Amino acid sequence: MFSFSRPNIAAVGLQRFEMDPDTVAKAFVEHYYNLFDLNRVGLASLYQDASMLTFEGQKTQGSQNIVAKLTALPFQQCKHHITTVDCQPSGPAGGMLVFVSGNLQLSGEQHALKFSQMFHLMPTPQGSYYVYNDIFRLNYA
Amino acid sequence: MFSFSRPNIAAVGLQRFEMDPDTVAKAFVEHYYNLFDLNRVGLASLYQDASMLTFEGQKTQGSQNIVAKLTALPFQQCKHHITTVDCQPSGPAGGMLVFVSGNLQLSGEQHALKFSQMFHLMPTPQGSYYVYNDIFRLNYA
Repeated sequence: MFSFSRPNIAAVGLQRFEMDPDTVAKAFVEHYYNLFDLNRVGLASLYQDASMLTFEGQKTQGSQNIVAKLTALPFQQCKHHITTVDCQPSGPAGGMLVFVSGNLQLSGEQHALKFSQMFHLMPTPQGSYYVYNDIFRLNYA
Repeated sequence: MFSFSRPNIAAVGLQRFEMDPDTVAKAFVEHYYNLFDLNRVGLASLYQDASMLTFEGQKTQGSQNIVAKLTALPFQQCKHHITTVDCQPSGPAGGMLVFVSGNLQLSGEQHALKFSQMFHLMPTPQGSYYVYNDIFRLNYA
């Protein structure tokens, strides 16, 4: 099961200079999928106008459009189960790449869907992160 | 089958200002897996000292160490079959994120292994790209 261990830190407000990258990445991933599964419209707080989403090959840009896309997906109830989280710094601008693999369980479906997703988190002047790049793919069996 | 259509462009020498990002990403992916499958040591030309690889959770840094890691993998003959390639610009520094899903067929194995891999390509002063970030994961069935 996907559990919510402490610290359950919002990406907005993350104390990025006080935590190691793996801890930040895991906290972000936990927060992101918690919002996706329980309060999908709340994901708006993690994107900005410049943010990009490619969801199953479909491109969307900007927080409002991205959340409109995610809330319009043809399933309302779902649960993400995370298998792996990898992260690397993305360069001198202070960004961080987060690479996730896991299973997506849709309500009423017997079998979970495998997925992979990558996020590029960029720092904000306030010392937190937002999602600049987001690419999602199902891994069909 | 994985085929080599033209332009089969090396990432070193890529004319990045004359091609759209999707074309660059596809050409890079074709070139990368061609080298991996046929001349793995030749991948050294795509990395630099600052490059990072996380392969199944194991971290390596620098072109020489990365190629040592990749050539020491416990399979000599393999063939990557690409299913999807997504790309996005990674920010003002001119980098590009490339997200790949596919199957990895190992010599003598009946079933191919599903994998996902992401690359962060960064521009060089010479107008080409190198791999700054590389994260690879098998998607176990």
